[in-house]
Order: sequence, then C-alpha cells, then structure tokens
Amino acid sequence: MAAAAEAHRVLVYGGRGALGAKCVQYFRAKHWVTTGRAGWALGAIAVWLGWVASIDLAENEEANANVVVKMTDSFTEQADQVTADVGKLLGEQKVDAILCVAGGWAGGSAKAKSLYKNSDLMWKQSVWTSTISSHLATKHLKEGGLLTLTGAKAALAGTPDKLSSVIATQFLCQGVTLDTPVNRKSMPDADFSSWTPLEFLAETFYDWIIGKNRPSSGSLIQVVTTGGKTELAAAHL
Amino acid sequence: MAAAAEAHRVLVYGGRGALGAKCVQYFRAKHWVTTGRAGWALGAIAVWLGWVASIDLAENEEANANVVVKMTDSFTEQADQVTADVGKLLGEQKVDAILCVAGGWAGGSAKAKSLYKNSDLMWKQSVWTSTISSHLATKHLKEGGLLTLTGAKAALAGTPDKLSSVIATQFLCQGVTLDTPVNRKSMPDADFSSWTPLEFLAETFYDWIIGKNRPSSGSLIQVVTTGGKTELAAAHL
Repeated sequence: MAAAAEAHRVLVYGGRGALGAKCVQYFRAKHWVTTGRAGWALGAIAVWLGWVASIDLAENEEANANVVVKMTDSFTEQADQVTADVGKLLGEQKVDAILCVAGGWAGGSAKAKSLYKNSDLMWKQSVWTSTISSHLATKHLKEGGLLTLTGAKAALAGTPDKLSSVIATQFLCQGVTLDTPVNRKSMPDADFSSWTPLEFLAETFYDWIIGKNRPSSGSLIQVVTTGGKTELAAAHL
Repeated sequence: MAAAAEAHRVLVYGGRGALGAKCVQYFRAKHWVTTGRAGWALGAIAVWLGWVASIDLAENEEANANVVVKMTDSFTEQADQVTADVGKLLGEQKVDAILCVAGGWAGGSAKAKSLYKNSDLMWKQSVWTSTISSHLATKHLKEGGLLTLTGAKAALAGTPDKLSSVIATQFLCQGVTLDTPVNRKSMPDADFSSWTPLEFLAETFYDWIIGKNRPSSGSLIQVVTTGGKTELAAAHL
C-alpha cells in the first residue's frame, strides 16, 4: 500500500477578515482522503494536511503561522515588510495557493467628504494586497499553484498582466454582500438569501486548490447569490 | 457692437509634465475670436481669455497661478492639501475645465524587483491625481464644465462612478507614446510616426472646452497614432 501524505500549504492574505478567517478554519479542519482505483487496501492514499499561514494586521490564532502587517501610508514599506517576512517564514518552501481575500468596499460619490478617506482605505485593502500577493506568487507559489485575488473591481488595476506558471483568478465582488455576523447585525432587514455564504467561497477555494472545477488561468469569476443559491460565473470586462 | 469677452479658466493637474506644460502654453497663447453672423461690425465677439492654473510638484512659470503639491506617502494628506490650496486660489470662482494630465507608465512583470516602486509611483501619478481631480470637479467645475482624466488604464479604478453635472472623459493611454523631446532622446530608433503629438491633445482639449466635437459624458477615449496621423476613438472596457 502506497500512502502519499501530501501537505498542502496555503497563504491567506486577510486571514483575520470574515472570509479569511473562514478559509483558515476550513482548511485547518479539512481532512481530505481519497483512495486509488483498487480500493483502500491497495490504492494510493492522498491526505490533505492543511498548513495555513495568515497575513493580516493582527494574528489569527487558528492559523499555523502568521505574518503581521505593519500599518503605514507607504506602500513600498509595507510591501517590502510583508515580502521579507513571508520569505523568512517560507524559505525555499513553496505553497499550493495564495488566496488574497483582503478587501473592503466603500461607497459614496466623488462629492462626499469621505471620498479621500474611503479611496485610501480601499486601495490599501484591495489594490495593495493584490499587488503584494501577485509578487509573492512569483516567488513562493508552486508550479501550477493557485493565486486568487478577491476584491472589489478596483483591485483589478493592481493586477499585473503576466504571471508565469500561475493560475491567477480574480473574483469580482462588486455588489456582492458576504453573509457575515457583522453584516447581519448592521443590515438586519436585508434579504439574507441574496448574500453569499463564506463557507461556499472557502469550499470553492478548496476545490480549486485540489484541482476540482478550477477555472482557467486569468479568469475573472463573478459570484452571484439569489434565493439562497450561490453560483459562479465567468465575468467579462 | 456687443463684445463678450469671456474668460475661460482651466486647471491643469500635472502642469509641469510634457503634456501639461504644452496645455498651459497652448491655452495661454490661444486667442479665440469669433464674430457673429452679422460680421465684425455688428456681431458679438467672443474672446478666449485663457487663465490657466497648474497643479504639480513644482511651479510652471508660464501658468497664471500655481498649486504646488507636497510629496507624501499619505494620500489623504496630499488630497487634503491640494483641495485646500485650490479652494484658497479659486474661492467661489468656477472653472471651465479640469484637465488631469498627470500620469506615467511603468512597465515590468509581477516578478520584477521594481514592481512595488513602480506600482507606487503609478498610483500616485495616475490614481491619486484622478481621484483628487474628480473631487475638485464636484466643487469648482462650472455646470457643464469639462473634466478629463488622462492616464494609464489603472486610473480608471480611482474614477468615481457618479459625477453630477460634469462631463467626465477618460483617455485610455495605455500603449500610447507621447512625442516628447525626452522620449525621442531615450528611444532614438523608435518610429516617431506612431507617437502622439502633444499639440494634438492640447488642441483636442481646447476644442472640447469650447464645445467642439465634445464626447458625451462618461466617454472613454482612446488615442491612436499611425503613420503620423492621430485619431480619437471611443474605447470600451
């Protein structure tokens, strides 16, 4: 009997956010066992050993490791710090996936006083993290590994065109409300059946990491939830 | 004889750059005189009196006024400073056009060491200036005035969706090389006939300000130069 225990290593950028924390939890809890065609006795056994590192402004205690991002107005300073810390953590070790789930959404018109503050926050949460994740992918992602950039449409601007040997997938989350306790509390009268469950997204990432229903590289995937049912669709710019 | 001397006020964001300086020069030099149908003796005379203010990191001495932008890594700090200084300069005075011609282009892959530095510079030059210009438009642009955001595609992310009473036009300059002395010097063997003359763009802005061939609000205009001939085309995302 050949037992292949393969450790899957995943970086979750934004591992303290609602979606990021769900991903960390999901990957840690998951035990994926598959047997070969000849059955248990003779087949190969692949075991999911989830090792998850969180990158965020604060530690996620459920993660196997943490990279704590220092707040600064300087993008290059933050990018250099995160890149150096991830380098120290991983060394020559490659990861199976980098999931950038940091992000946020800020509404308001160009006239609003809050425009500058909200724009600044949005870039820091979405564009900065996507750019850093893309660079980390070129350094630490396995050949054929998965990079997902989940953020508002704004994050697209920071997505470099060329990522060699990497599956880069981009979620288009504009207009998508995630079903989180905080959102339920702040919008108690909303139609929750149009909100996207975190579990669905964590499971989708998991599937893609193990190669199931993985979109082709460069895909832009839109998440749509209606009547309690969530579907993924390829979006076009 | 009714002589209507109408002062046109224009803000040029990036007035020290190659294109911005050309715009300042063009608008200062331009004397636009039109006579009414009845001819010189009896007709109304409209005179272009170009008042141009430059917003940039350094003063443009040819401009009528200057707002000098302080370098900082903090977007909100820079945005607040520019907004306050423009407010002091204009008071209740409205302008006919805000031309955001700041911007730059930085190449390179996600793997490159220069990714962070170049991304940072690109956001500061294109996205920051576009966002500030959009907000300035809501405060200081005349009803029906012209706001143009000229920059790399990245700037789109910073463009707010809703700009009331404003013609917001966006140039898509990705892949466009401006015909400047610096570019000629650094790429002496390039095909200059595919480069876009600054004069063409300054003239285009001028036309739009006076209402000639002005694209509809929200247009995204692509500039294409081939064989020494430059054309404008509506682009789609």
